[in-house]
Amino acid sequence: MIIDINCDMGESFGIYKIGNDDDIFPYISSTNIACGFHAGDPLTILHTIRKAKKYGVAIGAHPSLPDQIGFGRREMKIDSNQLYADLVYQISALKGIAESEGVRIQHVKPHGALYNMAIVDYGVAEAIVKAVYAIDGSLILYTLPHGALLQMAQNRGIPVAREFFIDRTYLDDGRLTPRSHPDAMIKDTAFAARRALKMITEKKVETLGGIALPIEAETLCIHGDEPNALEFAKEVHQLLKNEGIKVSSIVRE
Amino acid sequence: MIIDINCDMGESFGIYKIGNDDDIFPYISSTNIACGFHAGDPLTILHTIRKAKKYGVAIGAHPSLPDQIGFGRREMKIDSNQLYADLVYQISALKGIAESEGVRIQHVKPHGALYNMAIVDYGVAEAIVKAVYAIDGSLILYTLPHGALLQMAQNRGIPVAREFFIDRTYLDDGRLTPRSHPDAMIKDTAFAARRALKMITEKKVETLGGIALPIEAETLCIHGDEPNALEFAKEVHQLLKNEGIKVSSIVRE
Amino acid sequence: MIIDINCDMGESFGIYKIGNDDDIFPYISSTNIACGFHAGDPLTILHTIRKAKKYGVAIGAHPSLPDQIGFGRREMKIDSNQLYADLVYQISALKGIAESEGVRIQHVKPHGALYNMAIVDYGVAEAIVKAVYAIDGSLILYTLPHGALLQMAQNRGIPVAREFFIDRTYLDDGRLTPRSHPDAMIKDTAFAARRALKMITEKKVETLGGIALPIEAETLCIHGDEPNALEFAKEVHQLLKNEGIKVSSIVRE
Amino acid sequence: MIIDINCDMGESFGIYKIGNDDDIFPYISSTNIACGFHAGDPLTILHTIRKAKKYGVAIGAHPSLPDQIGFGRREMKIDSNQLYADLVYQISALKGIAESEGVRIQHVKPHGALYNMAIVDYGVAEAIVKAVYAIDGSLILYTLPHGALLQMAQNRGIPVAREFFIDRTYLDDGRLTPRSHPDAMIKDTAFAARRALKMITEKKVETLGGIALPIEAETLCIHGDEPNALEFAKEVHQLLKNEGIKVSSIVRE
Repeated sequence: MIIDINCDMGESFGIYKIGNDDDIFPYISSTNIACGFHAGDPLTILHTIRKAKKYGVAIGAHPSLPDQIGFGRREMKIDSNQLYADLVYQISALKGIAESEGVRIQHVKPHGALYNMAIVDYGVAEAIVKAVYAIDGSLILYTLPHGALLQMAQNRGIPVAREFFIDRTYLDDGRLTPRSHPDAMIKDTAFAARRALKMITEKKVETLGGIALPIEAETLCIHGDEPNALEFAKEVHQLLKNEGIKVSSIVRE
Repeated sequence: MIIDINCDMGESFGIYKIGNDDDIFPYISSTNIACGFHAGDPLTILHTIRKAKKYGVAIGAHPSLPDQIGFGRREMKIDSNQLYADLVYQISALKGIAESEGVRIQHVKPHGALYNMAIVDYGVAEAIVKAVYAIDGSLILYTLPHGALLQMAQNRGIPVAREFFIDRTYLDDGRLTPRSHPDAMIKDTAFAARRALKMITEKKVETLGGIALPIEAETLCIHGDEPNALEFAKEVHQLLKNEGIKVSSIVRE
Repeated sequence: MIIDINCDMGESFGIYKIGNDDDIFPYISSTNIACGFHAGDPLTILHTIRKAKKYGVAIGAHPSLPDQIGFGRREMKIDSNQLYADLVYQISALKGIAESEGVRIQHVKPHGALYNMAIVDYGVAEAIVKAVYAIDGSLILYTLPHGALLQMAQNRGIPVAREFFIDRTYLDDGRLTPRSHPDAMIKDTAFAARRALKMITEKKVETLGGIALPIEAETLCIHGDEPNALEFAKEVHQLLKNEGIKVSSIVRE
Repeated sequence: MIIDINCDMGESFGIYKIGNDDDIFPYISSTNIACGFHAGDPLTILHTIRKAKKYGVAIGAHPSLPDQIGFGRREMKIDSNQLYADLVYQISALKGIAESEGVRIQHVKPHGALYNMAIVDYGVAEAIVKAVYAIDGSLILYTLPHGALLQMAQNRGIPVAREFFIDRTYLDDGRLTPRSHPDAMIKDTAFAARRALKMITEKKVETLGGIALPIEAETLCIHGDEPNALEFAKEVHQLLKNEGIKVSSIVRE
């Protein structure tokens, strides 16, 4: 059995530092690197790519709505042609920096508000799929196991990796519990690790309502900016290792 | 005989429009497209690349110092590692958008203050050469027929196209007359065209001091944001055509 | 009888020029000056304030959502505390530049998407009212003759100038016809001028549905970035003058 | 005896946090708050002003060259009219936010590269002096005890507070030792505190060359972004208190 663990990285900006990139790299297999529209800057991208290469971690572009002060977390109305161009720009910039270091990018994962909009808005989902397809149809799209982006990507024949969120609870209908809910986040790292293991081995997750919800995913998402991100990464990585599950990126040598 | 004519384009930003891109395209063979750091935005880049493709005009990246409000015309102290990363980012973004439209980029021409700094500052010149080399060593660097960037590019084996400025006068030592000088700019388009012709056929230009200065160039530069840019483009193009000189990009099919 | 005519100005940015500010100034009595978040920059603000002062035109702040590439026309989700701070920042910057030139600002008019959101969203309206009140409760808010911002401003005791749009048609329920409708914009300047006159003298406007809708307004809005803005300004100004109606800012000496 | 201690604050940006503002406030009497051009954003400014008010710390504007990615530390060529407008904009924005909270600003201290340029460049110094004078001629300019800005401010009659740097060494000619020098920074907080005390009581500082350099200053500068900023603040504050020297802002009630 095999699973990917992905984590957002490269979210520093100039002298502003965020995340524990250096500590977390040993415990993940894929990294989503900010492209400069919500976080990151060219030098930060370059340094993050060099580290990913050193640790053998697969690289993905983590494009966003243009909103640095809001960290890409604010939904905005955006023309789909403009969104398409913004995405091709961001992914190409990151892809080019990776290639200048002799590595190829593996995947694309929309960031923040764009990630959420792509689940429900088919116009947004289409712009993302078109952008990825125009750059390289073999790039893997990371998204939820349901929703508009999954559907549009499959229609277009773009490979998809479905995500399971290690530190988030689920509602009975399969959606993530909104962050406004007091039980949205899982704090107990051991519990989170066991839950991830169950998802992998039994393809099920217990919802807030107590239902054993069927769920399938190829990648586990860890939030690098959470205070205990490193603990989560270590705990999950160790448990999976103990259980004989291999942690590996989606694209395997 | 053959010569390239290049012009800066894609310098609009959002609803702000600049230049006569649509009118000038028929009279040039290469275009330098702003990459978003001094001008341009992803959608503007995309539209400009589509037009260049339609007119069969070769595409180049026109990267800049990060200075939108100053239009990239203000010199600033910049760390060479940061400059290197800024350049790989910008060139890759433009290259990726071009490739998403099925075209390859031909060249790289530094913009504004960066162009001038690269003539005299070997650290800046080296960052540019390293960036171009890391992306694609066959990309052509556009620069003056003398100076640090020319030298560093030749040392590294990167192809270079030397520029002749159609609307600028020259000093006896080969430098462009500074813009602060009253005779820095040539206003008479017919005179400018004859002077360009002479440079091509005789490899000479008459300086402000009256000297017949030896000069060699593979490309003529037209400034798209000057009020009479279109007239310059038309006049030069017509005269060269009449004289049997072919206007063509550097990279020929 | 007396009426104010207001127009957006100072929307240039660096070398990017927009609008016919110089031509339009003689025909208006109030100007809404961009504060740098969707358009404008400190030097553009300074120059625009100097011109307004020269023409005796009252100055207003025209703050926006932070969205330069979208020109402040894209709705976005924004935290109300952040919006409040963004507004105090923008209005204070413009007010300070005006006062450094020896003039006081008269009013505040939200720009673009923020203007529209303030009509229907009480959270947004409250942030605007709080910001204006915290700076100077005698500043006049420009808004539609109905909606959340009008109501919140009146509750707080902030003076309001209700706007009539010279070049827009109205629906039977008093709302502006959405721009997507083919008859949303009025192109005929003579018709627009007569319609404005009727609003002033009879307090009525004929809707698209043919109803004589009661409407009251203290200020007429002209869009400075429309191609025929100058014609509109001249035509309306002349007709009002002929009919003995004085064009004057809200705050009168 | 009395002395001011000032510290840069409000340098966070959106979710990016920098500095130990909350910890350091009890040990200083004046704070220089970033205005959004190199760091800070409207909400960060607002929160920082509220904290300064709570601790009774005098507020100053800390305007910068427009360079967020470079944190205002990169020198750039800037037109003096543009610099003037940039400064009036930044200082007015901060002043307005302070006044909306019922407090007045005490001073202006140029940030980073602008601070250094103002010591040697009379054009830059004049733009700063003009901007401060146009806003409020009673605002105090913080600068070195020598140089262009001091001179221009004194010529114009603008009050000045001369700075002594707690954690920096001095050259025999009175300049700060450049950061590139291995002994530029003082790491020993106890030594730094004693040195500050000596400057206050004896008006002398021992240079790197061993000379007892005469020096006078009304304010001590602590760098809030240094790792041991809090220790410096505590140590100096305690020693001064023990020696009967009062720490107080320049403007005293």
